[in-house]
Order: sequence, then C-alpha cells, then structure tokens
Amino acid sequence: MAKTRLLITLGDVAGIGPEVVARAWPELVTRAHPVVVGDAGWIERALKLAGMSARVETIIDPTTAEPAADCIPVLHSTSQDLSNVVAGKVCREAGQAAYDFLIDAIDRTMAGQADGIVTAPLHKEGLRAAGLKYPGHTEILAERTGTKNFAMVLWGDGIAVAHVTLHMALRDIFKHLTPLAILEKIRLLQDLLPRLLDRAPRIAVAALNPHASDGGLFGDEEAEIIAPAVAAARAEGIDASGPWPADTLFVRANRGDFDGIVAMYHDEGHIAMKLRSGWRNVNISAGLPIVRTSVAHGTAYDIAGKGIADPASLIAATDVAVRLSRRV
Amino acid sequence: MAKTRLLITLGDVAGIGPEVVARAWPELVTRAHPVVVGDAGWIERALKLAGMSARVETIIDPTTAEPAADCIPVLHSTSQDLSNVVAGKVCREAGQAAYDFLIDAIDRTMAGQADGIVTAPLHKEGLRAAGLKYPGHTEILAERTGTKNFAMVLWGDGIAVAHVTLHMALRDIFKHLTPLAILEKIRLLQDLLPRLLDRAPRIAVAALNPHASDGGLFGDEEAEIIAPAVAAARAEGIDASGPWPADTLFVRANRGDFDGIVAMYHDEGHIAMKLRSGWRNVNISAGLPIVRTSVAHGTAYDIAGKGIADPASLIAATDVAVRLSRRV
Repeated sequence: MAKTRLLITLGDVAGIGPEVVARAWPELVTRAHPVVVGDAGWIERALKLAGMSARVETIIDPTTAEPAADCIPVLHSTSQDLSNVVAGKVCREAGQAAYDFLIDAIDRTMAGQADGIVTAPLHKEGLRAAGLKYPGHTEILAERTGTKNFAMVLWGDGIAVAHVTLHMALRDIFKHLTPLAILEKIRLLQDLLPRLLDRAPRIAVAALNPHASDGGLFGDEEAEIIAPAVAAARAEGIDASGPWPADTLFVRANRGDFDGIVAMYHDEGHIAMKLRSGWRNVNISAGLPIVRTSVAHGTAYDIAGKGIADPASLIAATDVAVRLSRRV
Repeated sequence: MAKTRLLITLGDVAGIGPEVVARAWPELVTRAHPVVVGDAGWIERALKLAGMSARVETIIDPTTAEPAADCIPVLHSTSQDLSNVVAGKVCREAGQAAYDFLIDAIDRTMAGQADGIVTAPLHKEGLRAAGLKYPGHTEILAERTGTKNFAMVLWGDGIAVAHVTLHMALRDIFKHLTPLAILEKIRLLQDLLPRLLDRAPRIAVAALNPHASDGGLFGDEEAEIIAPAVAAARAEGIDASGPWPADTLFVRANRGDFDGIVAMYHDEGHIAMKLRSGWRNVNISAGLPIVRTSVAHGTAYDIAGKGIADPASLIAATDVAVRLSRRV
C-alpha cells in the first residue's frame, strides 16, 4: 500500500521548526511519504545542528518526490531571503515565509497533490511583523479552505480534548458557554474519534465550577448549561456523560475511563494534557476539508538553534495525520 | 527523641476514614505516636475489613497512650450511637460524630495534650444532616481556635499550592483577585515551606488567563493584579516569579523548577495536583495556632466499606504533620 503523502511545513524558521523536522525525519519516512514545505537552506542548517547528514533535494512536484532517510525533498515555497534570519528573534521575513509555506501546503493539498498537512509552529509576532493579522495557523487554514465551522482538538496518549472556549480572557468565557456550543464540541469528538480509535468514543464533559458546583453551591452552569448539552448528546445516541469535576475527570481519563473530553476553557484542558503528555501532544484541526495536524508546542524561541528541541510532537502529529488520512 | 504525638480523627465513619486509618496504622506508628480520636467500634470494623488484627484500647488521656503496631489507642469522643451507620450513606449521627471528633482533637491539641491533628475526611451533607452549617474542617478549626487568617495548602510530592480563591463559582473569582490577596498567599508559602524543605522556597505565581494573556491580548489581570503582587513579594526579599502560563507552569514545577505555586482558582491547582500526586496529596492548614494536616481526598462514599481505599494520603499527611511539629 502506498504510504500517505504528507506536506510538512517548517513554520517560523527562527523557531524550533527546522530542528524538529530534521530530527524527526528518520522516523517520518518510516511512517509516511513526507515532503518538506519550506526553505532548503534552513533544513540544511538544522541537519548540521543535529549532527545528521542527508541530501536536501529541492523539488517542484510532491507527487513524484522520493523521500528517504538520506534524502529530504523540499518544496521551496517562499520568495523571502531567509539567510539572515536569526534563531530566536522575531523577524518579518520568517513570518512572511511561514505564511507562504502554509498557503502552498494548503493549495497543494486541496488540489490533491498530498493527503494532508503537518505543521511546525509559527510565531504570531512574526506574522504581525510581516503585516499578517492572523493569531495562528487555524484561522489561515479556515480562510483559505473556506471553512466556517472548525475547531482545534488537543490529542495526546489516547485522549482528545475539545475546548468550548480557547484564546480569550477567562472573564469572557461565560457568555460563550451555551448548550449548543458544548453540544457542537461533543459532536465533533464523536465524529473525529472513531477515525483514531476504530470504535465509538466515550465522551466526558468537564464541569466549569469547582466540584462541578457541588450541587449548585458554587454556580449554576452545570445544571443550566452543561447538563442539557450532555442530555441532548445522549438523545442523539452519543455516549456522553458529565458534567464531571475537572480535577478528578482527568485522573479518570488517564486511567482509561474516557476517550474524549469537552473542556470549558483553555487551561482546564491544557493543564492536564501538558502535564500528562508533554511533547507527545498533537493538535488536530477538525472540520476542515483536508487533514491537518500540528505539533502542540510553540516556536520555543528560548531554545531555538540550540539543538535540544524534542521532535516527539512532530512524530506524533505525523502518526495522527496518517491515521486520519486513511481512505475508509 | 520522643515521637510526635498526633491525634488522628476518623472523620465521617460512613466514608473511607476508618478504613484508611486502619490500613495506614502500621505505617503511622513507625512515624509518630498516633492516637485515634473517634469510635472504637468503627476502628474494629475497619480492621476486620482490612484483614488486620490489632487490639483497640479505649483511653482517656492521650499523653499516656502507648500506640503500637498491635495496639490502637482510641479516644471515644462522641456520645452518638454509630452502630447503625451504613457505609456510603449520609447520616446525622455520623455527621455529628465527625464534628465531635474534630472538636475534641482541637481542644486537646490547644491544651497541649498533642503536637498536632491529622484528619480523615468528613462529609458536608452529613454535617448538614446534623444541623451543622460548616462547609468543611477548615472553618470549624478556624472558629474553634479563634483564627481569622488561614488558608488551605495542597501539598504533594514536593510541591505546595496555595489558592487565592477556592470554593466559589468560577464566575465569582474575579472580584476576589487583588494584589494583596495574592501577596498574602505568597507570604504564606514563604512562611510554610522552609519548615518542609529546610531552605528558602522558590515560589511561582500562576497566571489567570490562557498564555498568561499573551501580552495583554486575552485579559489584563496579569499586568494589573498579578505582576504587582509578584513585585511586592520580591521587594520583601521573597524568591517569587510570575505570572506564568498555568499549563506549562505545572510541567516546570514537576521537573523541579519551583517549590510553591500560588493558583488563582480551585481547578487551576487541583487539576495538576490530582493528576500528578493523586492519593499522595495532603492538605495543610496554614495560619492556625496548631499543626493540622489532612488527607486530600473526600469520604469517597462510592467505595466506602469495600476495603479498597488507599491509605497513602493519610500516611503522607502524617509525615507532613510530624515535620511541621518539629520544635526548631
């Protein structure tokens, strides 16, 4: 069976993207048919940094590329000169190039030249320096593919977390928590998880308040908003339960009681997932017309260029992209 | 050197308190001079449940008790008849007795008959059934010892977490987050931790918003409220830092970067601590005139009477009480 063809974007080259791609490369070729979308010079730099040797081959057509442990095919997808970019420093050229890489990867995948995209991190300040006003990958992907309903799912070691609210002040989350918003995230996990698990998922919905409000003593969102969403999901035949107190929910999920968790806010899900799965976490874009996974870490400017970045998340993201790309 | 004399309260006997005390007992006598404050009949039941044999000796003066692996001295500290209490069911008698045990332990410790108290869990509904309107141990301890400023610290595997807000709706925390409230928790850890670590602690303050607000993009509490508290603590000579994004803060603490964490709300601290330390977590009452530690779990009515409750938290709580009772 032909391996899954994946486009691996380098992200912001001032970050750890090139390093983790280089270090992950020997693993990636065992799992997929990977093609780098980026800049040949930065991949060569990263190989040197990692003490690795492989031929970097600039290509123009990913469908005929022949990736191997000792050969890295690269689509050179930007007109920016990146030779003066400094690791760990925000820079206009690196920001523009990260955007160019992603756009090229999206367009080629939409055109059927690849089965999916795995992205290394970009840097919001880099984008901004290039005059691009996107907070991150997801918004670019949604815009370029014309997608209205999409969501980021955090996946690590067998647990998927979908967040009802994400990048907003904690003070602002309350107006976004509605039964429908919660139900939509439950449905999203119900749709996504069978492709990762090969069975129907057990989905748990986290509470908002401490002790799940302790029967209404500390807040009413559990009774008024979350429980109705769980009931609606169950009426649709979904194996959903909750609201569960957030502090013990992740302990239970960790011992195997649940496959998917709907969290009410960013840190509710991220505190647990970062702690338990660290560099093995992967982001999955759900709702797009194409497969796209991502490392779950940032550009890590503080360690960029030091050769110590862990490629585990990129390898895990590749595994997940391969799994999601299966033609069922 | 004489061992530390500790009063171990049974808590709500319909919960797992008696079981964990019985199972922990062989460990407790190696660490301290423990005396049970509770009900002799329920300790005997618990021993039977655990398949253990030891003599249960009803005493009236803890200062002359001779605890040993095969001898459990018990202060019978309630006039309630607990013979009909059923494991796992809320009950007035068990609620009243849990209160009686605690009051006796407090009064005796205040009178110098013991060095400290270690408490098994009580059940809020049990207290309520007995007409007692306390949410938990802490409020009873504070009232009975006449303490105005006190706080619960969650301790597990070398990390202490103090919460600025605790048992309240998430929606309500914002008005309680002030620079002074945060500074008071920093000071409290600065006061408590040297007694556990034998050195000055490294204290980290968690952010409130995702990504610590990402430079003000998602909220202003980091800049307006938390940073000033950290600055004030540093001006007092405390090794405090932050605000740190909550999701990576606990990863860093877990690898040894920090000893104490100030969390803004209940689940911010509890999600991480439950996940990483589970049954090894201990609650410490800071600010009281007496030493008091507690198991960090509840009555666990769902498993009470099954003989499967883990005594690790009670053993850890005893270790911490011994350490805090040292006369320096």
